[in-house]
Amino acid sequence: MKELKSKYDLFRQQVHIIIYGTNTVAGRLFDLALLVLILLSVLMVMLETVDKVDQRFHQFLIISEWVITIFFTIEYILRIISIKKPHQYIFSFYGIIDLIAILPMYLSFFVTGTSVLAVVRALRLLRIFRILNLVHFTGQASELKLAIKASRTKIIVFIYFVLVVCILLGSLMYVIEGDASGFTSIPVSIYWCIVTLTTVGYGDIAPITPLGQVIASLIMILGYGIIAVPTGIVTAEFARGRNSGLFLNLRNPCVNCGTEDHRENADYCYHCGHPLHDEA
Amino acid sequence: MKELKSKYDLFRQQVHIIIYGTNTVAGRLFDLALLVLILLSVLMVMLETVDKVDQRFHQFLIISEWVITIFFTIEYILRIISIKKPHQYIFSFYGIIDLIAILPMYLSFFVTGTSVLAVVRALRLLRIFRILNLVHFTGQASELKLAIKASRTKIIVFIYFVLVVCILLGSLMYVIEGDASGFTSIPVSIYWCIVTLTTVGYGDIAPITPLGQVIASLIMILGYGIIAVPTGIVTAEFARGRNSGLFLNLRNPCVNCGTEDHRENADYCYHCGHPLHDEA
Amino acid sequence: MKELKSKYDLFRQQVHIIIYGTNTVAGRLFDLALLVLILLSVLMVMLETVDKVDQRFHQFLIISEWVITIFFTIEYILRIISIKKPHQYIFSFYGIIDLIAILPMYLSFFVTGTSVLAVVRALRLLRIFRILNLVHFTGQASELKLAIKASRTKIIVFIYFVLVVCILLGSLMYVIEGDASGFTSIPVSIYWCIVTLTTVGYGDIAPITPLGQVIASLIMILGYGIIAVPTGIVTAEFARGRNSGLFLNLRNPCVNCGTEDHRENADYCYHCGHPLHDEA
Amino acid sequence: MKELKSKYDLFRQQVHIIIYGTNTVAGRLFDLALLVLILLSVLMVMLETVDKVDQRFHQFLIISEWVITIFFTIEYILRIISIKKPHQYIFSFYGIIDLIAILPMYLSFFVTGTSVLAVVRALRLLRIFRILNLVHFTGQASELKLAIKASRTKIIVFIYFVLVVCILLGSLMYVIEGDASGFTSIPVSIYWCIVTLTTVGYGDIAPITPLGQVIASLIMILGYGIIAVPTGIVTAEFARGRNSGLFLNLRNPCVNCGTEDHRENADYCYHCGHPLHDEA
Repeated sequence: MKELKSKYDLFRQQVHIIIYGTNTVAGRLFDLALLVLILLSVLMVMLETVDKVDQRFHQFLIISEWVITIFFTIEYILRIISIKKPHQYIFSFYGIIDLIAILPMYLSFFVTGTSVLAVVRALRLLRIFRILNLVHFTGQASELKLAIKASRTKIIVFIYFVLVVCILLGSLMYVIEGDASGFTSIPVSIYWCIVTLTTVGYGDIAPITPLGQVIASLIMILGYGIIAVPTGIVTAEFARGRNSGLFLNLRNPCVNCGTEDHRENADYCYHCGHPLHDEA
Repeated sequence: MKELKSKYDLFRQQVHIIIYGTNTVAGRLFDLALLVLILLSVLMVMLETVDKVDQRFHQFLIISEWVITIFFTIEYILRIISIKKPHQYIFSFYGIIDLIAILPMYLSFFVTGTSVLAVVRALRLLRIFRILNLVHFTGQASELKLAIKASRTKIIVFIYFVLVVCILLGSLMYVIEGDASGFTSIPVSIYWCIVTLTTVGYGDIAPITPLGQVIASLIMILGYGIIAVPTGIVTAEFARGRNSGLFLNLRNPCVNCGTEDHRENADYCYHCGHPLHDEA
Repeated sequence: MKELKSKYDLFRQQVHIIIYGTNTVAGRLFDLALLVLILLSVLMVMLETVDKVDQRFHQFLIISEWVITIFFTIEYILRIISIKKPHQYIFSFYGIIDLIAILPMYLSFFVTGTSVLAVVRALRLLRIFRILNLVHFTGQASELKLAIKASRTKIIVFIYFVLVVCILLGSLMYVIEGDASGFTSIPVSIYWCIVTLTTVGYGDIAPITPLGQVIASLIMILGYGIIAVPTGIVTAEFARGRNSGLFLNLRNPCVNCGTEDHRENADYCYHCGHPLHDEA
Repeated sequence: MKELKSKYDLFRQQVHIIIYGTNTVAGRLFDLALLVLILLSVLMVMLETVDKVDQRFHQFLIISEWVITIFFTIEYILRIISIKKPHQYIFSFYGIIDLIAILPMYLSFFVTGTSVLAVVRALRLLRIFRILNLVHFTGQASELKLAIKASRTKIIVFIYFVLVVCILLGSLMYVIEGDASGFTSIPVSIYWCIVTLTTVGYGDIAPITPLGQVIASLIMILGYGIIAVPTGIVTAEFARGRNSGLFLNLRNPCVNCGTEDHRENADYCYHCGHPLHDEA
């Protein structure tokens, strides 16, 4: 009995190394296989909804979907048993994603009604989040994240301003244009205003009265102009990130001549050639 | 009589604390309630114009609108009587907004004719401005405002340039394209040119002659290129604000000469050479 | 005879002061009147092409147009006789514009055929250029011009790159999509590609085959990404303009402590308080 | 025999100078002629696909195409025989482009079937790449390239993020909207999402349900906001390039240790302290 326990423990350890580790060949191969499988699975969920593809390969898609679901189910169980504190994985963001991504196929037994089924089956697409966990981005992503985080408050203030402008100008257009040109209600007019201000411009709704076209022109020029604001915010943050890195040793002047703006990795003063760091 | 007067004064004081103050619990609750009510009211004005919603909840919308209007009316009266100089509030921007926002319902008794009524009722949407007064933005908004203010003149010059380009190229397209493709008059052609230059592109009017398409392509590439100009202006302003540390020691003027915009790490006034920090 | 000559010379002098000068009250009033007249005239040229307006106010528009044309003709003659070297004005950019802007009405006697007449009459819109001469922009415009001039070469290289991409991808789409979805020839496909890459997106031509939609998606993401390039170029130029101003005296270190990055208008070192300029 | 060999060698030398050289008058004229011929040829390939032009000038286009093809064939052969190591040219990027650009006309003898022929004939457009080889761009292009290269990783991370967002939101829209408004399958919905997020907005597919329009609005505002990210990245790179003076003394490495990216005003190597300029 004890032997069985220790065998099981050894199995758990090995599984843990393969699933969670990235240092061994097996662990890397597992990650790669998982990545390919997730991409394949996501691709298949998409193609299922294309009528032509579904009609021709229906049987093949169903079977592959089951194979993939069973593989993910096994992987999910192995993840739980091979970790020391299973609840930490189960209730983590990726644990919940993993569970939601395998449930749809099993639920398809119980759920009937095409529209509900469509929603349930689409949930499998959440697997795409798992790639985020697999692909280990370089420091680039974190720099991006930092710059966006730093400019978050300003961007929210900006979006609030955009929304207020869209509500007011959208309502104005509703009063001016009326039903004939598609401005059937204030919410629809606000939708149109967002479509115009963001320079998307579908054209499903477009002003036809002269006054409406004048105001639409103003909204477009406004939208064209204020796109500069979020851009300016993020760029300034990026530039700040860079500058503060580059001039990090602004407070480390050369002891010989006082020159300050050395490169980060400088060992000698570029102005007088004196060593920058103590020899001690 | 005097007792009544002093009671009324006490009432006015308490009302003032609740309505204008933000330090007491009652004052904050009042602000929060007002915020929710304004958002609800704005949402209802929008939904009223959606035919389906209006047909089903007409009675409910009318009654709620009256309840909200009466609440805002009471609040408006209380604001006037609780402030020392009522005319300062009444003729302030927010005082006028408050008045305009409660008038429509009372005016609906006198005004007849659907189109006028629609305009009048839409005025209630101006309540959204009141949120600006309620939500106390952080320093972020003021930094945004400063950067936009600083680049205002350049942006106006830029917009003037865009308009001249649109008038000339729009007229050119009118001459080239003619009525067949929707370029029915010069103003409409200018409208199309703005739609194209700002990269909105509805598609309700689109060139069909080869020459027209060539010029349209040039306009698009022009628009795609010159969007860089406002972006560059605002970004440079943002970056300047940051680099010069303009905002940081604006409140630390030189005690000797009053000069204000010192660098962040300055120890002496750059204008008169006086030490910036107390020696004590 | 001599008296007449001297009277004529005095008249020429006075006219010169009014037309070319901006320092006297009469000169400024003349400029303002001209500005208003040009704007009115441009507005009328536009409205003439709107069928509804033309039908109702045809007579009024024709008469006003003649009044304005005669005024501009007199102004043109006065400009020529009041200047010392008339040929300098006549063959200058604004001289040619002035001439072209008054010719259409006189040409309308000789020219027949509606389409030619439309072109000739549209020439009157060139008057709008005259405003550029009247409105004296601040230094802002010249800063704008400098930044754009400095980044001109890079922007031309960028546009060349965009055009090559559009020719290649447009041709590819022509091969993939075919006539059914509007890609009737390579030039039209290139036009579509420019419409898409610049994020204008009319929708008059849109891919319908799956492969076409995949490539269209790639073009959009490409266009969405490379808009950053001109923006980056112009912004860097703006920022450089600013920085080089701000740090203009990087080569003027404090003789006492060697600190370098003083503000442009600094008289004393912000680090040690020593005077920056020689007392001599 | 030897005489013939030496004559042939002389011929090869002269051809080499004309074709590959840019210092002699003949060499420059050859480059210019080639540039004009390539542009003409590209223009003709385009016009061939325009039905109207093809019908009128069919004979002329075919003959000119043959003339150009024969010229390019001769040029291709001369390039091979006049270079010392022919395989270096043949298997270089431009060598392959040259070959592909002359093959289509010869292949048109063997290939039948209009659709295949259209593809083959479109290959001639690859000639446009040859211009890149002829036009010698200034340092501007290389600076552009460096800035884009430096921000490549961040832009790929950004595009990956955009794609994940489009897959998830596209699928969500598929579930919400359904077939009626054109969201017929998940791939089509993802295509729509890319069209919307990049602010292209064709309008061939547009949401009609209220919930769909709300989510579409969110996607637009998202797309309007995150365009700031690539712009910020590239701008920061451009600004960095400028500020650090990175490109200026790239050709002035330290004679002692070879370190290259010194500041513009550096006198001593920051890595080893050796003087950068000769004392002589």
